[in-house]
Amino acid sequence: MTTTTTDGPTAAAGQVTVLGLGDMGSAIARTLVDRGYRTTVWNRTASKSAPLVDAGATAAATAAEAVAASPLVVVCLLDSTAVDEVLGSVDAAIAGKVLVNLTSGSPSQARANERWARERGAEYLDGKIMRDPPYVGTPNIMFPFSGSRSAFEAHESTLQVLGSIAYHGEDAGLAAVEFMAQVAVAYELLIGFLHALRLVQAEGVDVAEFAERIAGSVVAYPPLLLSIGKAVKSGECPPDLGSLNVQAALMDDMISHRESIGVEAMRMRQVKELMDDRIAGGHGEQGFSSLFELLAKRR
Amino acid sequence: MTTTTTDGPTAAAGQVTVLGLGDMGSAIARTLVDRGYRTTVWNRTASKSAPLVDAGATAAATAAEAVAASPLVVVCLLDSTAVDEVLGSVDAAIAGKVLVNLTSGSPSQARANERWARERGAEYLDGKIMRDPPYVGTPNIMFPFSGSRSAFEAHESTLQVLGSIAYHGEDAGLAAVEFMAQVAVAYELLIGFLHALRLVQAEGVDVAEFAERIAGSVVAYPPLLLSIGKAVKSGECPPDLGSLNVQAALMDDMISHRESIGVEAMRMRQVKELMDDRIAGGHGEQGFSSLFELLAKRR
Repeated sequence: MTTTTTDGPTAAAGQVTVLGLGDMGSAIARTLVDRGYRTTVWNRTASKSAPLVDAGATAAATAAEAVAASPLVVVCLLDSTAVDEVLGSVDAAIAGKVLVNLTSGSPSQARANERWARERGAEYLDGKIMRDPPYVGTPNIMFPFSGSRSAFEAHESTLQVLGSIAYHGEDAGLAAVEFMAQVAVAYELLIGFLHALRLVQAEGVDVAEFAERIAGSVVAYPPLLLSIGKAVKSGECPPDLGSLNVQAALMDDMISHRESIGVEAMRMRQVKELMDDRIAGGHGEQGFSSLFELLAKRR
Repeated sequence: MTTTTTDGPTAAAGQVTVLGLGDMGSAIARTLVDRGYRTTVWNRTASKSAPLVDAGATAAATAAEAVAASPLVVVCLLDSTAVDEVLGSVDAAIAGKVLVNLTSGSPSQARANERWARERGAEYLDGKIMRDPPYVGTPNIMFPFSGSRSAFEAHESTLQVLGSIAYHGEDAGLAAVEFMAQVAVAYELLIGFLHALRLVQAEGVDVAEFAERIAGSVVAYPPLLLSIGKAVKSGECPPDLGSLNVQAALMDDMISHRESIGVEAMRMRQVKELMDDRIAGGHGEQGFSSLFELLAKRR
């Protein structure tokens, strides 16, 4: 994987088309215009293009006309259904272009789009967007990309204008995989955090002060995450947060405490069950990372 | 709450008794000896005290005799059952002492210990230990304390010798609350991370490289955690990771993707259900933080 961050304004900026002018598409088009790109825009509801035209963009009457205007076509629509409809109307006009689709969707949808583009003689890059429209054009928004390597390399300097970018591989689905996995980890932390706020509140602790302490703790997690990543990859799972024997006893204490104050312990019960399974299999001296082996067997 | 970190060696070190010489108790006693404290030790299995006696500690024949030797008594045993037994054998000998119990246990056990000490004319401090024995004596191990404020203040310089310390309040249960809540957040992140490793592996991505990217992402979470803490405290829940309407659609995509590759989506389904509940109640324009309101009603 290659990671790069935003450059300053590009000296010799080129031509870009943006299809879809919702909040995100508009932020992308506006950033391109501001950085000196000759930007052609199209949106199903034409009124959305007015502020961009005022800023210097050119509005096209149809998606196919917009595609014809630039070698690089950025698509940012509501969902995959909208992508299918718009690309259907473009059809053969995509030949010879580089199609960059930033619309949210699954890895399999990205792979289907890649096939669609290839069949019409276009190169395809799938991208996902990890942050909100106001961050477009800053290094604080992350775009994972996957698909055609030659397309990524040819347009890297333009894509960098949008934010921090990373290339994840030729499989067009990989940007969506990265997005799904990163977002999942964030949500797992956040729902656990929300339950912990409930726990401390039930015990009379100030939730905002506890949040400050957790914010301080979280930045110390990376070494543990790295060691678990290595353990899972190698299959050697030494004690990490202690042995599973010790961790399972702690999990019991945490479950009992939650039950005593009426705080949900669903995830902890699942973890305890996984730990018991490993301990019963004779792996009680291994670490948390050894639970990984069980996950493939369960849904 | 007050947070302080380890000082250098103490000039005028005092007398401390340590009851319990497992890995953690031994590390604590060794650190005190090394910093010049006149340290008295006791363990049920007497042989454990030999290396500490070699280092300069004094071994007592009984727990009561060890308690009599110092104004400050640190207890670090296997579990609460062991604490009950040992304190039962000490009984009235605790009068006039400061009892610091670092044994793992629940908030209610800490509160019961505090009553036991008070009834016998002793001051009680409960402490929890957030890291492994090798870190004792460094700033990289955290000890939350709660209980007698005067005892904490009188012995703060000695407790600082053990690591980073923080005082959470007069309620003796609060150190255990902090421990339970902090550890829960870590486990929720880790089990979510482990499932995400399974997801990326199923999609052909290197798990150790993904772990590196997550380690990089996690350090950017604090502002979000702080804003959710504030939102929960104030009850005003503006969009954070977007509105719940947008987040619920994303959750659906993530669940479908996981189902398509056989990766567990239990927690995501629960989050989706909570989101749907809030949206149905007319709060779809609020943020993730607004799920908090539902947690009190569910177990």
